[in-house]
Amino acid sequence: MQPKTPKDSITILTDIVLPGETNPLNNLFGGELLARMDRAASITARRHSRRVCVTASVNNVAFNKSIPLGSVVTVEAKVSRTFRTSMEIFLDVWIEDRESGNRQKANEAIYTFVAVDEMGTPIEIPAITPETDEEKSRFDAALRRKQLSLVLAGKMQPSEATELKALFS
Amino acid sequence: MQPKTPKDSITILTDIVLPGETNPLNNLFGGELLARMDRAASITARRHSRRVCVTASVNNVAFNKSIPLGSVVTVEAKVSRTFRTSMEIFLDVWIEDRESGNRQKANEAIYTFVAVDEMGTPIEIPAITPETDEEKSRFDAALRRKQLSLVLAGKMQPSEATELKALFS
Amino acid sequence: MQPKTPKDSITILTDIVLPGETNPLNNLFGGELLARMDRAASITARRHSRRVCVTASVNNVAFNKSIPLGSVVTVEAKVSRTFRTSMEIFLDVWIEDRESGNRQKANEAIYTFVAVDEMGTPIEIPAITPETDEEKSRFDAALRRKQLSLVLAGKMQPSEATELKALFS
Amino acid sequence: MQPKTPKDSITILTDIVLPGETNPLNNLFGGELLARMDRAASITARRHSRRVCVTASVNNVAFNKSIPLGSVVTVEAKVSRTFRTSMEIFLDVWIEDRESGNRQKANEAIYTFVAVDEMGTPIEIPAITPETDEEKSRFDAALRRKQLSLVLAGKMQPSEATELKALFS
Amino acid sequence: MQPKTPKDSITILTDIVLPGETNPLNNLFGGELLARMDRAASITARRHSRRVCVTASVNNVAFNKSIPLGSVVTVEAKVSRTFRTSMEIFLDVWIEDRESGNRQKANEAIYTFVAVDEMGTPIEIPAITPETDEEKSRFDAALRRKQLSLVLAGKMQPSEATELKALFS
Amino acid sequence: MQPKTPKDSITILTDIVLPGETNPLNNLFGGELLARMDRAASITARRHSRRVCVTASVNNVAFNKSIPLGSVVTVEAKVSRTFRTSMEIFLDVWIEDRESGNRQKANEAIYTFVAVDEMGTPIEIPAITPETDEEKSRFDAALRRKQLSLVLAGKMQPSEATELKALFS
Repeated sequence: MQPKTPKDSITILTDIVLPGETNPLNNLFGGELLARMDRAASITARRHSRRVCVTASVNNVAFNKSIPLGSVVTVEAKVSRTFRTSMEIFLDVWIEDRESGNRQKANEAIYTFVAVDEMGTPIEIPAITPETDEEKSRFDAALRRKQLSLVLAGKMQPSEATELKALFS
Repeated sequence: MQPKTPKDSITILTDIVLPGETNPLNNLFGGELLARMDRAASITARRHSRRVCVTASVNNVAFNKSIPLGSVVTVEAKVSRTFRTSMEIFLDVWIEDRESGNRQKANEAIYTFVAVDEMGTPIEIPAITPETDEEKSRFDAALRRKQLSLVLAGKMQPSEATELKALFS
Repeated sequence: MQPKTPKDSITILTDIVLPGETNPLNNLFGGELLARMDRAASITARRHSRRVCVTASVNNVAFNKSIPLGSVVTVEAKVSRTFRTSMEIFLDVWIEDRESGNRQKANEAIYTFVAVDEMGTPIEIPAITPETDEEKSRFDAALRRKQLSLVLAGKMQPSEATELKALFS
Repeated sequence: MQPKTPKDSITILTDIVLPGETNPLNNLFGGELLARMDRAASITARRHSRRVCVTASVNNVAFNKSIPLGSVVTVEAKVSRTFRTSMEIFLDVWIEDRESGNRQKANEAIYTFVAVDEMGTPIEIPAITPETDEEKSRFDAALRRKQLSLVLAGKMQPSEATELKALFS
Repeated sequence: MQPKTPKDSITILTDIVLPGETNPLNNLFGGELLARMDRAASITARRHSRRVCVTASVNNVAFNKSIPLGSVVTVEAKVSRTFRTSMEIFLDVWIEDRESGNRQKANEAIYTFVAVDEMGTPIEIPAITPETDEEKSRFDAALRRKQLSLVLAGKMQPSEATELKALFS
Repeated sequence: MQPKTPKDSITILTDIVLPGETNPLNNLFGGELLARMDRAASITARRHSRRVCVTASVNNVAFNKSIPLGSVVTVEAKVSRTFRTSMEIFLDVWIEDRESGNRQKANEAIYTFVAVDEMGTPIEIPAITPETDEEKSRFDAALRRKQLSLVLAGKMQPSEATELKALFS
């Protein structure tokens, strides 16, 4: 399979925040944001793999900034690293000021998807070739995250987690 | 006010079709698509004008192709023409084939928005400068549509509708 | 097939506006109104044709008056004209004052539906016989709208659009 | 206050059943039907009283017939009896056969609403004058239901419930 | 079939009230509460019978206290009495004060479900053995409610309704 | 402030999966599950702190088993560890077999919430005292997760992350 680049499968989901999507503090309800990110990430996973993809895990979502009612919210999803049958998708969430048009980072999140065939069996996917500096740095960090999640799940010995050992020792 | 170009305020809303958004034929429910287009168009109107904008009319929506459950749907909204306080927003709706990645036009729509100040009074907006051939051709057609809607609403005499007279006589 | 009258298939959808159906200005969200009109219109199309019907186009929706949270909204859908396999549905949207009970027109819209058989092929429908003055006037105007949409879509030469030629020359 | 008739405040809510409103058996989800009836009944209560009205109780809902995906469902709400500050609203739910157009009763329900002033205090409402035979029979039965609910709530001695004593002794 | 106790199939659904679930007075919308109760009750019916269950009726719902936006709402559903193929489910709805943690009863409701086999035919279910005083008292009252609903539906002669005769004469 | 135990603030949200909450494979849509977990976790955070709480991050969600349409899903949220102003909430998601009643773990997730005062400033919360073995083991692991997230966010030097150093060296 031909490797692909992150921009080949980038997904942009720009939408507003309506009252029916807020929490009692009049900000975007966290669960609604998680759902929008899941939708965007699943499209990117599908575009990269050309396969049916299922959410395997949500690894990290930082809610740095609350998003007020009426905001314009842009969710951008890009493949940050591929493994044999799974992909790490990195999401950036932006809001923009109506008057100046300036945009500001509100959240980041990392989701993992697995590509499956008709029977639901995981299936091999194309590799990813990061291009920009940010893509390369996220590509490198993804391996540490992968090892970490294997260690925390008890599927890898800490001593085999070479990337993490290098970090902490 | 500085004129702007369509690409300055383009909005892209890519999303999937879940079962809760379908009609009994398992295609995207028409009302849901109309709502998604309204959301995308209102963001473009706001980005162009940097003002609060309200939907004035939906002028034409052609449902050429039904959109099946599970599809990836991209709504693209661009300003096609501005008038003193109102904007025509042209929407293109695309679906894409999962395996080949090819995309296909599913629908087109035209919405009109008005920019308002804090009191709800219509307020002047920047002009638009079309750039591509398609943008220019839609810009020209928008004037005919505007005259037409004024004539049909009884706010312009057919004899004053110069663009339409030229077309039909 | 026996012709029918508009009142044979009129649909009335009276409902309230809850907070989850508003926009950030606390009025009924435009997309939600478009969806309610689509639901009512599709019922009228089905009642007239006794067939499965699909939305072909939304020809004109004028948002004249915003509809505040808590309003009682009545959508009335009637067949305004039939063609061989398609129907124009005219929608009137009313809101009513709680204290006086007086009702006021908020919006009008025109949707077009096509009746299809089990295979999705367009199929002939009964003719409509307008009765009231308003029904007759909308019936006449529908032909002009039909020609117009054919001309704008490039499917009819302006010179063949007899109704429009009469109007503009 | 001038008495009113049931037809002065009748509410008709005709709508379809979309996939997002079904239960796992592909019929209209019970909770969704209860919500639609609540919406229609609250409009009738408001139209009769010209006041803000709140749901006091749901007294009886019989789900006689399940309502399949794609059905056209008509909820009709009428005032069946008024008390000093409260109203009993009787709801009839109909579905219709697409091909024959025949309609069939699917459910009945009884809701009670109280009219309140700006402070939330219950406030007097106009009396109702039933006209048809069905309206008269429902008007009579409403008193039995009222006494019954008072007895079951421990707010009336069974011995004072004259209508019920007559029925059971 | 082995009898069961109410606690064998109790269902607890604790959830918050978001803006999209309110009415225009900023309290939980009645229809949404009816839906939540239907969901919880259907789970209890299924857990007791280990069968597919369908809502047969909603017998009584008292809205004693409105539930403000942002509340934590707990719906508890327990089998109060079984008949051959049907179950009465008693629901208690609680809200809690954020600062003190004290909880307060907001509503009660009674739903009836029928267990069905694959063909939709009603099917026998296990008996219930009430344990607590409240469970016993609700168990007793359920028979009166059952007779009452049969009498009101014209399916039992008042003279045969022994429990009710005892109450009213 | 008096320390509390996990069972003081446990939240149980048992609910079914309706068609409007599924993905195109007829399983519970990932975004909907993320939203349900967010709702349950926010209630636990509020119950523990007696304060308004906001989602700070979603640290780990493992989607081990897909949850089919019609399932009964139980989300259980418990405080696993407190820090000065923040709490780690551990979520266990269970589904149950209708016929046997056996339940099976479907997912686990970890969310972090911060308690805030009226001005939105983080505010001190009571400590947690784990009781069961599982609670104690999750309490211990939480510190490693906390250090990890500080290291990954660049807010702690790997060399200061004593818990992690112990693990990997």
